[in-house]
Amino acid sequence: MSNAEDILKKIENNKEVVGILGLGYVGLPLAVTFAKKNVNIIGFEKSQIKADKVNKGENYIGDVADNDLKNVIASGKLSATSDFARISECDAVIICVPTPLDRFKKPDMRYIESACIEIGRNMKKGTFICLESTTYPTTTEDFMLPVIEKESGLKHGEDFWLAFSPERVDPGNTAYKTENTPKVFGAMTDDGMKIGMAIYKKAIHEVYPVSSPRVAEMVKILENTYRLINISMINEIALLCGKMDIDIWEVIDAAKTKPYGFQAFYPGPGIGGHCIPLDPFYLEYIAKQYQFDLSMIHTAGHIDMMMPHRMTIKIQSALNRHKKSINGSKILFLGVAYKPDIDDERESPALKIMDEVQNKGGLVMYHDPYIPQVKTEDGHEYKSVSYDEIMISDCVVICTNHKSFNAEDIVSKSKLIVDLRNLIKVKSDKVYKL
Amino acid sequence: MSNAEDILKKIENNKEVVGILGLGYVGLPLAVTFAKKNVNIIGFEKSQIKADKVNKGENYIGDVADNDLKNVIASGKLSATSDFARISECDAVIICVPTPLDRFKKPDMRYIESACIEIGRNMKKGTFICLESTTYPTTTEDFMLPVIEKESGLKHGEDFWLAFSPERVDPGNTAYKTENTPKVFGAMTDDGMKIGMAIYKKAIHEVYPVSSPRVAEMVKILENTYRLINISMINEIALLCGKMDIDIWEVIDAAKTKPYGFQAFYPGPGIGGHCIPLDPFYLEYIAKQYQFDLSMIHTAGHIDMMMPHRMTIKIQSALNRHKKSINGSKILFLGVAYKPDIDDERESPALKIMDEVQNKGGLVMYHDPYIPQVKTEDGHEYKSVSYDEIMISDCVVICTNHKSFNAEDIVSKSKLIVDLRNLIKVKSDKVYKL
Repeated sequence: MSNAEDILKKIENNKEVVGILGLGYVGLPLAVTFAKKNVNIIGFEKSQIKADKVNKGENYIGDVADNDLKNVIASGKLSATSDFARISECDAVIICVPTPLDRFKKPDMRYIESACIEIGRNMKKGTFICLESTTYPTTTEDFMLPVIEKESGLKHGEDFWLAFSPERVDPGNTAYKTENTPKVFGAMTDDGMKIGMAIYKKAIHEVYPVSSPRVAEMVKILENTYRLINISMINEIALLCGKMDIDIWEVIDAAKTKPYGFQAFYPGPGIGGHCIPLDPFYLEYIAKQYQFDLSMIHTAGHIDMMMPHRMTIKIQSALNRHKKSINGSKILFLGVAYKPDIDDERESPALKIMDEVQNKGGLVMYHDPYIPQVKTEDGHEYKSVSYDEIMISDCVVICTNHKSFNAEDIVSKSKLIVDLRNLIKVKSDKVYKL
Repeated sequence: MSNAEDILKKIENNKEVVGILGLGYVGLPLAVTFAKKNVNIIGFEKSQIKADKVNKGENYIGDVADNDLKNVIASGKLSATSDFARISECDAVIICVPTPLDRFKKPDMRYIESACIEIGRNMKKGTFICLESTTYPTTTEDFMLPVIEKESGLKHGEDFWLAFSPERVDPGNTAYKTENTPKVFGAMTDDGMKIGMAIYKKAIHEVYPVSSPRVAEMVKILENTYRLINISMINEIALLCGKMDIDIWEVIDAAKTKPYGFQAFYPGPGIGGHCIPLDPFYLEYIAKQYQFDLSMIHTAGHIDMMMPHRMTIKIQSALNRHKKSINGSKILFLGVAYKPDIDDERESPALKIMDEVQNKGGLVMYHDPYIPQVKTEDGHEYKSVSYDEIMISDCVVICTNHKSFNAEDIVSKSKLIVDLRNLIKVKSDKVYKL
């Protein structure tokens, strides 16, 4: 029996062990989704604290239901470890590690590289390997393959199989979770395709095969590039509308009445989170290697990079109406999460505006019911203050439109409001809108 | 009774006469839609030939049903004239004139200006005036108003009312026609709003009021800017995919499986028609007056402008495989319409590619079942040749994916194909794809 037949038989008999590398906002929901379908899952996590939490059934990811985690831990279908040597117990390994940008906005491939080294050194013959982390096209074939072959001494296509299947996790999305979001999957060989489809189909309702990992890699980047350029475009037009005395929010609501060929995007203080501000720049990076300049992504990146600064200028202009400067004024930020109703402030533009306002001498505070404390890029640390501080602030800056924020109450209690999210629908002299 | 009460009463009693200026692809469908609802319509059209055709019930616009036109002419509800003095008979005037760009891509406002002069010189007191032509925000208030006041000697708000309501005609769209496409409407005064809503509601199922003409003007430009930047983005990524050995069409089909937050756009040889390649540049133009640079539109425009040239290079590369040059080769273009199944070649990128190929010494022919003859920007004139010419052509370039084109037949009969529309789904050595 060939290695491929061997693993396919195991999958058929529900005997396969699947390792998931990285138990973060992608890996943990995936691990739980598989384990709920009675697949044997080992979760690999470098943080011993997180691994221990998982093994105790203590959930730390918003998109995972607490009870689901408890149940799959109790049933023994999921266990977590920080011991990567146990990759040798796995028939398949799925990689869900971060792919950040460094401070020069270049891809930071260290997490993928280190995962490949761990896998190469520990895996047994006949292991299926799939990357889910967003990265530039050609990563699987040209970056991962040589590392794994070198570390393992094994040969791709015979001894192991490589594939790519992009995660499509949308934090806070209650309609589309891991199991009911269609999954794109591309393998390097026919055997890899068969094995990967057999594994994923156990947990995911719809797996959509494509002809290669590089196509699957490009799919994910296209999805998020679409979002980046549309948000950047509407941000740029919003800034123009501010000068032309046109309410951009009214424009968008009216444009939405077009029943075809339009999708609404909304302006804001900038783009946050771990996908849209990062993914397109992975593509821009690899494009250079092909002597290719992605001008749309470049331009969108430029707009996005300038947004926090432009928002600081808005705050300055608002205070100017009251004959005040940023320097010495009490400025309260309402909401620092990068989108509503989640507890995640990664890449949040609010933090960048807070840095700039603080550096200009503003007395910065913030209130966010979801986030008790933050540390900004410039190293400033803040704790969420009481909501009532809006009453004694010179300016309140609405950065996140959490559902719990009451527009009427904010207007009645604040002296001056800079609303970057169209939270305040009433007309008021106090309100300065994006 | 005030002028406003007077016209509102007329509208209520179905006594109002509505003039429609310009009986082109926007004006004629609108005129017929109104007349079908028993509104008295006078169509004003500078071309005596077109006016005569309308009066004889001879339809020349694809989106108008021949019988609808015949019926409203027979019932007397619609009549056409080239005599603009008859504007004096109208209670309301709707302007549907072209708003092209000049050869330096600057707005050509002459049609709107001349319409305003005709109206100002001929209208009676108490006339409602609405512009439907796409134009930059502030046109109605800052460009039209002074011209009409000057020519008429009348005063806005008392003697006449100005408004803007963007046309949303999508040529060839069979699901959404004039009457069932929601219509955005913005007037300068409350009276103008009341009158305009009362008129439009007779013909259009859903009229969506906004607070000012400039908001309505921006709505239309936002809709088409959205399309411009997304098509440009996918064109740029398609060119990169060509270098990376990634099938962009496969990528888009896979990305479409994402059930939220994605709308598919497809690459092509460039953007054609009378909206998307023009409208955003109206906004770019006015933005300059506000010291504002619309970098996304600028970048998208740059990509779009280069597409025909890049397609010419694709043709050159394809011929190179056969050790041929463009110079001296027979090159047949299949489809010159700017989109499938319509008879309109305005701004079609096919014509620009034909010009460049011809200028490089190519022996250019085209076949399009919808378009018997064309004249390019460089002044070359062509007549559609027989489809069978594909058999004796050195290269066939698919520029429009008309439904009537049979991919299998084209592959079997052609020597070499450059497919810019993903018409050919089979793999073949003969086919060179965008």
